[in-house]
This record gives sequence, C-alpha cells and structure tokens, in this order.
Amino acid sequence: MIKANNPALKSWVHVPEHSDFPIQNLPFGVFRTPGLQPRLCTAIGEHIADLQVLSEHGFFDDLGLPREVFRQPSLNAFMALGKDKTRAVRNRLSEILDDDLDEWDASELAEYFLHRQADVSMLLPVAVGDYTDFYSSREHATNVGTMFRGKENALMPNWLHLPVGYHGRASSIIPSGTPVRRPMGQQMPQDAEAPVFGPSKLLDFELEMGFVVGQETALGERVPVGEAEDYIFGLILFNDWSARDIQKWEYVPLGPFLGKSFASTVSPWVVTLDALEPFRISGPVQDPEPLPYLKTAGAHSFDIQLSVAIQPEGGTEKQVCKSNFKYLYWSMAQQLAHHTVNGCNLRVGDMMASGTISGPTPDSYGSMLELSWRGSKPLDMPDGSQRKFIHDGDTVIMRGWCEKDGVRIGFGEANGKVLPAQ
Amino acid sequence: MIKANNPALKSWVHVPEHSDFPIQNLPFGVFRTPGLQPRLCTAIGEHIADLQVLSEHGFFDDLGLPREVFRQPSLNAFMALGKDKTRAVRNRLSEILDDDLDEWDASELAEYFLHRQADVSMLLPVAVGDYTDFYSSREHATNVGTMFRGKENALMPNWLHLPVGYHGRASSIIPSGTPVRRPMGQQMPQDAEAPVFGPSKLLDFELEMGFVVGQETALGERVPVGEAEDYIFGLILFNDWSARDIQKWEYVPLGPFLGKSFASTVSPWVVTLDALEPFRISGPVQDPEPLPYLKTAGAHSFDIQLSVAIQPEGGTEKQVCKSNFKYLYWSMAQQLAHHTVNGCNLRVGDMMASGTISGPTPDSYGSMLELSWRGSKPLDMPDGSQRKFIHDGDTVIMRGWCEKDGVRIGFGEANGKVLPAQ
Repeated sequence: MIKANNPALKSWVHVPEHSDFPIQNLPFGVFRTPGLQPRLCTAIGEHIADLQVLSEHGFFDDLGLPREVFRQPSLNAFMALGKDKTRAVRNRLSEILDDDLDEWDASELAEYFLHRQADVSMLLPVAVGDYTDFYSSREHATNVGTMFRGKENALMPNWLHLPVGYHGRASSIIPSGTPVRRPMGQQMPQDAEAPVFGPSKLLDFELEMGFVVGQETALGERVPVGEAEDYIFGLILFNDWSARDIQKWEYVPLGPFLGKSFASTVSPWVVTLDALEPFRISGPVQDPEPLPYLKTAGAHSFDIQLSVAIQPEGGTEKQVCKSNFKYLYWSMAQQLAHHTVNGCNLRVGDMMASGTISGPTPDSYGSMLELSWRGSKPLDMPDGSQRKFIHDGDTVIMRGWCEKDGVRIGFGEANGKVLPAQ
Repeated sequence: MIKANNPALKSWVHVPEHSDFPIQNLPFGVFRTPGLQPRLCTAIGEHIADLQVLSEHGFFDDLGLPREVFRQPSLNAFMALGKDKTRAVRNRLSEILDDDLDEWDASELAEYFLHRQADVSMLLPVAVGDYTDFYSSREHATNVGTMFRGKENALMPNWLHLPVGYHGRASSIIPSGTPVRRPMGQQMPQDAEAPVFGPSKLLDFELEMGFVVGQETALGERVPVGEAEDYIFGLILFNDWSARDIQKWEYVPLGPFLGKSFASTVSPWVVTLDALEPFRISGPVQDPEPLPYLKTAGAHSFDIQLSVAIQPEGGTEKQVCKSNFKYLYWSMAQQLAHHTVNGCNLRVGDMMASGTISGPTPDSYGSMLELSWRGSKPLDMPDGSQRKFIHDGDTVIMRGWCEKDGVRIGFGEANGKVLPAQ
C-alpha cells in the first residue's frame, strides 16, 4: 500500500465528514489570490495548502526540486519532473499534514500556507497542449447509435476493435466556475431546404473524465499498453459541452467541430493515479479480444462514482445522472497506447477525455440527449419546469468521488452556468 | 501599394534569378546555428538575416519592441506584438536590405547578421496551440466523395454551406526536412473478418497551405468575416501526411485521427499577408450564397502556384502535381469567421490548414489518392518504377510561389523523407 493512502491517517487540518479532500487524497491544482502570481497547491478539507510557501520554508529541500516549479500558472513544469519527484512531493505533503508526525509538522506555519478554498480562485490546472476526446462507453455509443441509425446498426464496425477518438479544441478548456455562453451556429432544421443561423437550441452536457499526460514521448515512439499508466499523471472531471443541432449538421464526414469547441469545463483538481490506487478494479470483459498492442493484464479501471446535477437560476439543484467511471469499455491505458501506436508524440499537459460515461440504466446516462432520449422524455425539475436540454441560466454540476474503508477521494466539482447567446 | 512590395526594389544581397526570397518577400522564420539559442530571421536570396543581431545593433530601436522578442524559439511573441509592429519590422528590413538606401544601410555589418541558408538549421517557425484542418477544395471533396460514395452523392449536404473542418494534432507538426516514419496501425483488409495491425500500405501526402493566427480572441467572441484577415499573420506550405488504410477504418463517425496524427510537415518560412497582397484575386463564385456571417465583399483568395514532387531514394525528383491556392472554394477569411462563430477562442500561433488543394484537371490533384485514383492509375517515375502511394525512401517535396511583374514571392519547400515503419 502507498503510505500516503493509509486509511488510518488523520490530518491536523480539520476535514469535515464527506469532504472530497481528506489527507489520503492530496490532489494538485493551481490557485491565485488577489495581487499574487498563480502558484501550485493541494487540497485538504475546506482548505488549500500553498506549495510555494512550503517550498520557501524548506519542506521540500531534500527532494531535489527546481525552485521555480511551484510558482507557475500550471502544473506542467511540476508534472514534467517525473513521477518519482511528484510522488515524493505528495508523500511529503502527507507527512506535513499528518497529525501524528512531528518531524515535518508544519501546523505552526498554518497561517502562512493554508487558505480557505472559499478565499482563493482556482485556475485551469494544466496548460493543455493537445486535447483528445475518446468515445469509450459502449452504452453511450450504443444509445447514440440506436437513436441515429437504429438498434441493429448502433455500434460502428470499428468500435469493438479500437478506442475511437478524435482531436478536440484545447483553447476553450476552462476551469470549473467559468460561465459558458450558449453558442451560435448553423443548423439544418428538419425538412428545411437551407440551413439557418442562430443560437443552439439543443445545448447539452457530456459527463466525462479526463486524464493528464505527465511524461512526453518522442515522435515515432509507441507506448506499450503495459507501460501506458506511467505516462498518466492524474484524472479530472470533464464536461464536454455539446450543441447537438450544430453538431448534427456539421459532423459528417470529418467529425465534431463547432458543436463542441465553444467550451469544455474541467475540475480544478487533478487527482493522482496514486491516490486512486485503492479503487482500482477490472473494466468490462472485452469481446472480441483486442489486438495484441491493446491487450492488458490486470485491473485498469477505477471505481469512481459520478453524478450530474442541474441547478436552474435561483432554484435548487436536481441530480439527473448517477454513473461510474468503471463502465468504460476501453481503459485509459488502452487509449494512450492506441494514441501513440502510429508514432504520434505526447507532450506534458496533453489531455485525453473518456467520452460520455453512460451506464446500463437510464438514470446513468451521461448526457441530456440520452436522458431525455432526444427530447422525447423530458426531465421534471423541482420548480415544476422540464428539461429536454439545458436552459439559459442553468448551472450544470459534475461531481466524482471514490469511497472505501471510510475514506472518500473526491474531485471537487466541474460546474458551469449557461449564459444566453449573444 | 505597400512600400516594401515595390517591384523596383533591389537588395545589396545577391538574389539569384528564380529565388523565392527577393527583397519583396521578407518572410519570417526561426533558425539555429550550433551553440546558439534559436532566434528569429528573415530570408534574402540564399541567405538568412539574423533579426536578433540587427536588433542588438539598434536597427529597430525606434520601433518600440521588447528586446527579447527576437531571441525566441518561435515567432509567437513577435506575432503577438500585432500587425502594426510586425509590419514595421518588415518595412525596416526592406530598408536595411535595400541597395538604394543609405540611412539604414547595414551592408557593412553583413558578416554579423547574414548566414548562408545552407549553414543554418531552420526550425518549426511557430509554437502551434491548436491546429485545425479544413476541407475547402471543392474538387478534392468531390473526387474523394466520388470514389467512396459515387458521383451523385459526392459532396455532403453541408459542404456548400460551411467550410467543413476538424481539429488536428498539433504536437506532430514538424518543419521541412524532418524525416517521417511510416505509421503502424489497425487496418481492415477488404473482405476480412477482423482488423489487422501493421505498417500503413497506403501512405499519402496532401498538398495544403496553412495560415498562422497572429492575434488572439476572447472566448465567446465572434470575428466578423470582414475583419478576419486582421487575425492572420501569414501563410505556410503544409503537407498533411495521411495513411489512407488507417484512416478508412477509424474515421467513422468521429473523423480522421491516427491516420493523420503521425506527422504534418510545414515550410520553415511564414510569408506575410502583406507580401502576398499583389497576388490577391477573387476565389470561385459561391452558389448557393453563404449565410450572412460568411459573406464577403472583395477579393479574398491569392494566386499562389503550388507543386508536389516525389524523389525516390538516390533518384531524381518527378513533379506529380501542379495546383494553385486560388482553387479553394472557401477563403481563409471565411474559415476563420466560421471557426469563431460559436465563440471558440483563437490563440497566437494557432494554425489552420486549407485541406487538400486539388484543381480541376487530373494533374492538379493534391494527393496520391486522387492522382492514382485509389491506386487504379499508377504514376510512372523516371527510374521506371511506379507509384500508387508513397514508398519508403521517397522524399515528398512541396513548393509554392507567386509570380508577377518580374517578382517571385516563394515559400521555400516543405519536404519530408519517408522512413520504413519500425
């Protein structure tokens, strides 16, 4: 067992019950307070710990880290140090925050490096180089395929043989809390002769998780599937906002473009693979057997509970979806091995999202398209209104957490409020 | 007329006949010599001029530029200064290199800032944020559509209404001269029951041009089509290498992915829109009329001659394609306006490629897929061999140039040699 994951550990910082951030989590993020440059931090209970201040006080001196690595607007330089170093920092944070350890006790310095989360702004944690979106939930692909091509042809012939994916837009990936403007664009109304231009009428979320690449590869290099997890620094929540009407008109034959590129919302915290280790489980059985370069031994999925809620302007939120990362057919290791099998190079900060994570039951579908079955089954909201898709003023809130042995490892939120088109 | 474009100008640096780089061009690039950090340069005849050295000698002192802008591994910081500044630098370079001007004459300093192009390494000129590939040649889309769906359904219903495009991979964009490794990947052989894994057998080039974004936009901002060219710094040659067999198996329904992401080759020189101004012409008539947000007045295409040659290992090159940028149906202004119409933000260094530029005649088709019509019409090479697609050891060489009034504005080459799969 990784020492920092020990369920018996307790922090001298108060961690409320059901907090996403006990001492066993210690995710990484980037924050800003007024007047100061962005810097790296971890989360503990309702606080963040400023890694730059800890570094200045010598807590990482024996780890051989470059000084400037914590005073950065992104995690990239930190991640690029490699897993040995980043793991050592997480382990040291565990010691610093542990209420049972004297050697690294920093509680007397709390006022210098602890801030209430409510008092800081969390920024986009990663400077994203390339962003790739996969399509790895069999249930989601089957649901969408059934709607658009009928039950018999729901899955395309390639789907069970490779993790289908496509390149997405990196510039418009935004941190939780950033409002999302309803996009304008071309749509082809049913039975119309020509397309029209206007605000998307079918604005949707997609419940996804993403992983962040922490180690680069050379152009021409293939990452063996058995080593792929070494290249993954950690995971985030990912809302792949989608304008279904724009997407439908534009996407043949080259794939989604403006129907997706207006915004993607991520959680501010990157939870390390180390912290998720206790929740490792096997994914679905794969039949047909994948080609050798995609074949893995062992467990490569994670038991991460996921939820989506919609909160109308001024109203109370309603949970509309409850899903789980474990439903994904293709693992992250398979996605990464596939991505590099042609020699495509990875860079630190690249982000790869899972595709919509839908489960087997209707309440586990990860998009309004599926939940309302193309608008034919509207959802009832607490205020008496209904939702086929997302309304202006709605805030979409994604959450994710693992739970076991009394320890909850959470991701915080990926939320975004929809503003009217302009 | 832009002063620096005056056909009467001559440089004190020798410019051979048919050079791509007379004093009227002055493109921008990034070079390195052994032992020195990368820095910015322009091209003149068979030389490059080191902008950092010129800056150190005070030639740009009155232009109000930050000192470090020329000592960079990419043009990004320079482009981000804005067109007023970058235009002033090009105009000043014109004065510095002009044989008729005393005030800024730098000929006595030639040994300090001029290098033979053969003596320096040209690097990737731009740190590419996001890369988008369009599909804007009607002839190319029709050819490919005819091959795969028949003549009646060649163009998809959306094609004449919007510039179809998709996100591409930025990490694997490489400068001319970088070898390209034949990619491995999944393919589905005809009549097979399961896919196989191996080297691509149908390796192809795509003759494209790309433009580089020189000014950022905010998330949620739309760029009016009439202002779109203000956001374009300049143009490059672009070879969108494609593995047709990998692409064919993977691309439904989300578009090209590993069939393209193993490499894209660009020319080392970014030719400014200013330098191309004398070659501005109208593009094809657009019928049906585009929606208002895509409607432009005036001429928004450019008369840029393009060619592709294949040079087998140890053999002589053969020109296999002669095309022209003017054949593109959708203009760069329309591409950029469309790209931002949903509020997607642009960043300095973003690259947008045109899609394969095929003309109306078979010798103007911009890919082997079209030139050999899916392999049914092999091309004869000087050494007696034939080509349906690209062989190991072949170097694919793309060239582009404008010519008028005795002035030739060229792009240099985008070339890449294919190495065997590994």
